[in-house]
Amino acid sequence: MAKKLVIVGGDAAGMSAAAQARRAAPQLKVVVLEKSAFASYGACGIPYYIAGDIESHEDLLALNPEQIAARGIDVRCLHEVREIRPGARAVSGQTRDGQSFSESYDYLVLATGGAARRPAWSGLGLERVFTLRNLEDGIALRSFIEREKPRRAVIIGAGFIGLEMTEAFARRGIEVTLLNRSECILGDFDREFAAPVLETLRHCGVEVVLGADVQGIEGTAARATAVQSSSGLHAADLVLVATGLEPGTDLARAAGLALGSSGAIRVDERMRTDRPGLYAAGDCIEVKHVVSGEKVHAPLALTANRTGRIAGDNIAAAALGRNSEQRFRGTAGTAITKVFDYALAQTGLSPMAAKRAGFDAVVFEHRSRSRASYYPGSKPLWIRIAVERRTRRLLGAQMLGEEGVCGRIDALATALFARMSVDEVHHLDLAYAPPFGPVYDAIVHVCGKAALEL
Amino acid sequence: MAKKLVIVGGDAAGMSAAAQARRAAPQLKVVVLEKSAFASYGACGIPYYIAGDIESHEDLLALNPEQIAARGIDVRCLHEVREIRPGARAVSGQTRDGQSFSESYDYLVLATGGAARRPAWSGLGLERVFTLRNLEDGIALRSFIEREKPRRAVIIGAGFIGLEMTEAFARRGIEVTLLNRSECILGDFDREFAAPVLETLRHCGVEVVLGADVQGIEGTAARATAVQSSSGLHAADLVLVATGLEPGTDLARAAGLALGSSGAIRVDERMRTDRPGLYAAGDCIEVKHVVSGEKVHAPLALTANRTGRIAGDNIAAAALGRNSEQRFRGTAGTAITKVFDYALAQTGLSPMAAKRAGFDAVVFEHRSRSRASYYPGSKPLWIRIAVERRTRRLLGAQMLGEEGVCGRIDALATALFARMSVDEVHHLDLAYAPPFGPVYDAIVHVCGKAALEL
Repeated sequence: MAKKLVIVGGDAAGMSAAAQARRAAPQLKVVVLEKSAFASYGACGIPYYIAGDIESHEDLLALNPEQIAARGIDVRCLHEVREIRPGARAVSGQTRDGQSFSESYDYLVLATGGAARRPAWSGLGLERVFTLRNLEDGIALRSFIEREKPRRAVIIGAGFIGLEMTEAFARRGIEVTLLNRSECILGDFDREFAAPVLETLRHCGVEVVLGADVQGIEGTAARATAVQSSSGLHAADLVLVATGLEPGTDLARAAGLALGSSGAIRVDERMRTDRPGLYAAGDCIEVKHVVSGEKVHAPLALTANRTGRIAGDNIAAAALGRNSEQRFRGTAGTAITKVFDYALAQTGLSPMAAKRAGFDAVVFEHRSRSRASYYPGSKPLWIRIAVERRTRRLLGAQMLGEEGVCGRIDALATALFARMSVDEVHHLDLAYAPPFGPVYDAIVHVCGKAALEL
Repeated sequence: MAKKLVIVGGDAAGMSAAAQARRAAPQLKVVVLEKSAFASYGACGIPYYIAGDIESHEDLLALNPEQIAARGIDVRCLHEVREIRPGARAVSGQTRDGQSFSESYDYLVLATGGAARRPAWSGLGLERVFTLRNLEDGIALRSFIEREKPRRAVIIGAGFIGLEMTEAFARRGIEVTLLNRSECILGDFDREFAAPVLETLRHCGVEVVLGADVQGIEGTAARATAVQSSSGLHAADLVLVATGLEPGTDLARAAGLALGSSGAIRVDERMRTDRPGLYAAGDCIEVKHVVSGEKVHAPLALTANRTGRIAGDNIAAAALGRNSEQRFRGTAGTAITKVFDYALAQTGLSPMAAKRAGFDAVVFEHRSRSRASYYPGSKPLWIRIAVERRTRRLLGAQMLGEEGVCGRIDALATALFARMSVDEVHHLDLAYAPPFGPVYDAIVHVCGKAALEL
């Protein structure tokens, strides 16, 4: 009889696992249990859907129900798994309309994603207070905006979601106050390095308050009206709490699965948990960092897709009694975001993260341009790198600019996977033509500076 | 007494050598002998100067005469070296106004660059026939255009200069016919892969004739009027011969220096020729290719600047009785050019070059997009890679697109320096956000396809 794979969660990791398992072992029965109304959508597109760049939430669906069915995947939305029983190889739960269900499995993938972190503030339960994690959240938020036409929003948290939503709200004509507890945006972009972005935000009418400790959300008649922070009272008829993402480990924890030191589910490089037949993938797991070697919770879309696919491939191979070559080779935490005209990107360890991880790190910075000095339309392109003093190894980089950021951070991510020294990066043969950069590119230049001064 | 460094050629390599030698050994006397009227300019900017994007040729000067003097470099323009005598450690020549000069040296750098290749066609000596190599050529061509207002140009050769000049002429309102002997542009971009660029050229009014063997240039009253090719007679009141660059080895050859199999000057990784104290750098030398390991003539701006700097650093160290760490680590032939809205880029070995170099190469191609499918404004982004069958090693890549090409080719160049397999590239952690690409980037995707199918 055909073996059965059950997947808890129908977003990037879960659907990647489902699709890859079916591709590699077409005889597998694959059931995806998704608690929300949507499976297989591009979660990273939600801010642009809210901004109105993307007309309909349906445009975010990677596969529509017919395409999913054509791949032989049985996706059941509005099915919330509430318990997994690894010993019995079964899961059970409830549909949104209150029906109980249970499902046995030969293989299980936990792709439970992450949950928006909700700090212990008063007023979080008020109306007009939002978090943003899945497509239902996005639809609720856009429909609130279109219905209630809020004039003033307070966004708490200047991470990826906070910054992307700042732009989305501002472009919808909403006055935005962006509060951030730390003095850095996006984790480790400090005031000095992020200056052009902070300036752009202000220029676009956004009030940015760094170092603001939120104390609570105030309201009248059950509706939020303001956010109280160490920097004052910030009036709001819309509050977005964007203080980060926690791994969704409730089910795993209740079932007694091992969690790692990061708090996320512990898996090996094939995405196996410590229980037979039980895999996990996506934003709920921890993965190895290629620079520090430590296990980290790095909830990023490519890793979610990739770990899902790896889980699916290994399950298919196990079901077929074969061996899969697919292993996870590590994250560099490579990430990029657009904030108005700017791109901010990072890979590997920031200077602060390198120090936190115990490296004797030296920091080098270079303020370059995106085109040759004499070529029209050149934009700023800033780079900052962390280098290990003794080994001269590149540990990580941060970049910002209006053009040419994404690929350059990819080149540095590649250098991190190859464990290159700054001397090696300095001597790379990179592309040059006047419309694309100076002859000594920002990457080559900053590593040359490091090679010289170390 | 201070030692003396003489440099023949004041463009990228020569001036880099001069500046680095003075930085590292300030007591060195440095004399640069440049046959043209200009030293230290951005030669790659000449097409944009001719197009009119750059107002004055002075904007292309990296250092003006005062800045050069401030660095303690004695630059003598209009000084053409005609002989080097390695035994006597001396050079001699003539100024443009007919004065003889000679100069002794302790160290010599030959930075004689390259010369435009001039095939054996009739009519090459006619008026209105141009080649483009140095700033004087560029000034002559722009001034001809502004004075004579040519209506129809024929460009022979669809390499970097030919394509950049096609755009420059077209944007000046000149009707352009672009003739190319091979069926590929830029060396190895075939019709199919280059289709969007060929389409854009035609859309901009350029007549592109591939596979056209030029037989000669015709003229009346000493002026070119047409180019005769295997595809017909192409009327022209301006002809640009852009059939490639030959290494400038006349002086080296006459002095009996060893040339390599590529025909360019042979140097070691410190830029030393086979004569004591005699170095060479830039477009006149051959360098090691990181993928094939062969010595190649790869006249590119970054390599010219870099080999010049390495020569200068090693000479300074030799003069100080020290050791220099600066060695050339290889070229990947990484290059990019802009053709109207498109960027075309390559690194490493193209499929054809890989086969010519004796690799058992397999080709993979992917037609991707520059942004997530649902994100507005996405452009085509095409990639083609060559992979060694047995080792699965990436050998090279070609890309084209309207955005995001430059950094991506840099990431692949980095992978080549690290000798990565397609499996390793497939598992790189690259940056993703919807405005910058799909979650599985073109690079990751095409290497995944190769990993699966090999």
